[in-house]
Amino acid sequence: MGDNRTPVTVIGLGDMGAALAGAFLAQGRQVTVWNRTAVKADGLVARGAVRAETVGDAVSASPLVIVCVLDYGVVEQVLTPAGGALAGRTVVNLTNGTPGQARGTAVWAAERGVGYLDGGIMAVPPGIGTAEAFLLYSGPRDVFDAWREELAVLGRPEYAGADPGAAALQDLALLTGMYGMISGVVQALTLVRSAGIGPVDFATTKLVPWLSAMTAAVPHYAGQIECGDYTKGVVSNLAMQAAGLENIVRAHEEQGVSAELLAPVRALVARRLAEGHGAEDFPGVAELLGGSGSGSGSGGEGGSGVAAGR
Amino acid sequence: MGDNRTPVTVIGLGDMGAALAGAFLAQGRQVTVWNRTAVKADGLVARGAVRAETVGDAVSASPLVIVCVLDYGVVEQVLTPAGGALAGRTVVNLTNGTPGQARGTAVWAAERGVGYLDGGIMAVPPGIGTAEAFLLYSGPRDVFDAWREELAVLGRPEYAGADPGAAALQDLALLTGMYGMISGVVQALTLVRSAGIGPVDFATTKLVPWLSAMTAAVPHYAGQIECGDYTKGVVSNLAMQAAGLENIVRAHEEQGVSAELLAPVRALVARRLAEGHGAEDFPGVAELLGGSGSGSGSGGEGGSGVAAGR
Repeated sequence: MGDNRTPVTVIGLGDMGAALAGAFLAQGRQVTVWNRTAVKADGLVARGAVRAETVGDAVSASPLVIVCVLDYGVVEQVLTPAGGALAGRTVVNLTNGTPGQARGTAVWAAERGVGYLDGGIMAVPPGIGTAEAFLLYSGPRDVFDAWREELAVLGRPEYAGADPGAAALQDLALLTGMYGMISGVVQALTLVRSAGIGPVDFATTKLVPWLSAMTAAVPHYAGQIECGDYTKGVVSNLAMQAAGLENIVRAHEEQGVSAELLAPVRALVARRLAEGHGAEDFPGVAELLGGSGSGSGSGGEGGSGVAAGR
Repeated sequence: MGDNRTPVTVIGLGDMGAALAGAFLAQGRQVTVWNRTAVKADGLVARGAVRAETVGDAVSASPLVIVCVLDYGVVEQVLTPAGGALAGRTVVNLTNGTPGQARGTAVWAAERGVGYLDGGIMAVPPGIGTAEAFLLYSGPRDVFDAWREELAVLGRPEYAGADPGAAALQDLALLTGMYGMISGVVQALTLVRSAGIGPVDFATTKLVPWLSAMTAAVPHYAGQIECGDYTKGVVSNLAMQAAGLENIVRAHEEQGVSAELLAPVRALVARRLAEGHGAEDFPGVAELLGGSGSGSGSGGEGGSGVAAGR
């Protein structure tokens, strides 16, 4: 392992699977590919990949098997026919799914003597193998370390933790953050468009610099969520923010724009305020979302979270 | 005007008003202050400010009058007793409010022969006068240009447009974007906390770099919203994103965390998908928020938006 000549198998050749196989091929590595619809391998075969006739052949061709299929149900369905050929190999599953599904597939793999890493890809297919791409992996640290060089071909490998669900969880948490941001962006740009202000000019000269500056506060907010204390270093308390949110909603009404993307923020701030936390900072609304006994953020809670997810 | 010795009056000495007056005082400028509760001026008077006994005296002391009070209702209430003393002076109103309120106060000022700029402060009080602070101003361009040097004392002055509501609108649009981002951050950090992953480490090493990278896509999204065409340069279409959002919601359920901050995103994506736009990019959901005839983003719509807001 770790040798540049280690052959790699890629199972599942959608846009992402093909990009993964392509990154290994670009390196001159021996790549075996398999896809339920065999024709999808044609482009990769033309670039030097070996087309396996069966999943068993595909698995047998390499000690490292990358799987990237539609969903977790398909993972087990596709791999099961490989039977005993799986034992002793490492499966790196980059299929999109939930932490609970990742944990379930890790159990399935362990029962078959298969080394298992679960991964989350933080890139779009054209980004695979570029400097911007990074991938999250979870499972046994020694398995991650053993294959780090191969995994680095796809993008920067980041170890997310021993819990097999950690990569999926962190992947989905990053996407959660992204959806928050782009929802705010779409809501904001719809508002400015309603007043005849050009979204591109506004985004470029004002919104992007503003959001970039605001990211500086994120570690501070994270610290509040980690310790469950939302009262330190407050520059704009929840009571003031509630007043600001009312102005935001009224401005949308005046302009004939629905502010529905902001509706739950407003509702959570109002609830937290009603519960007597007006002097706190915004992240106190985290306490209304559950998932933690009291905001102490200890590893013990993580344990229960894992258990709850299985 | 524009002379360093131009005296300035500041009306309203809450945390923000006091910071505004303080920035002018720090410059050695003659500053007259007034607050309904006179004792709030004590600290500024100790630093050299002149306490006016009446609003009329305060207004008469300077050609430039900065107002920063609780809300727009208070603005007119506080200034009315100054009567004829207001004519020929410039009022820069930095009170928080909506575009419609700004437009209303601009009419009120015009009826009294008062030059009027409406502003939005993109800083917290301790940030006033620092390099990070910027303030948006709207109203007649010549009035903005005439007082630019004085306004620059408070933070970088940005002209938002002739529509008196433009500064409030852009201020609130920036806050809208910020609430989207910090909602996503709180949702994401609550999710990772539920799995025993430290929010601070996750925020610092993964979430902030990820969000910073994602801001690069914002001008592209803005271009889609500006032209109303969401089909160009799509790397992850709405159908794929809907599947990803389902995984996000299921992950929250598995971890016992409410995903309510994401509820409207999911609902809008589902609606847009049901209407046959699965091949589009995410910002197509803007079309479900209204405020625009057909997404052409022309100035004409802005005109109607302004009209609707008055």
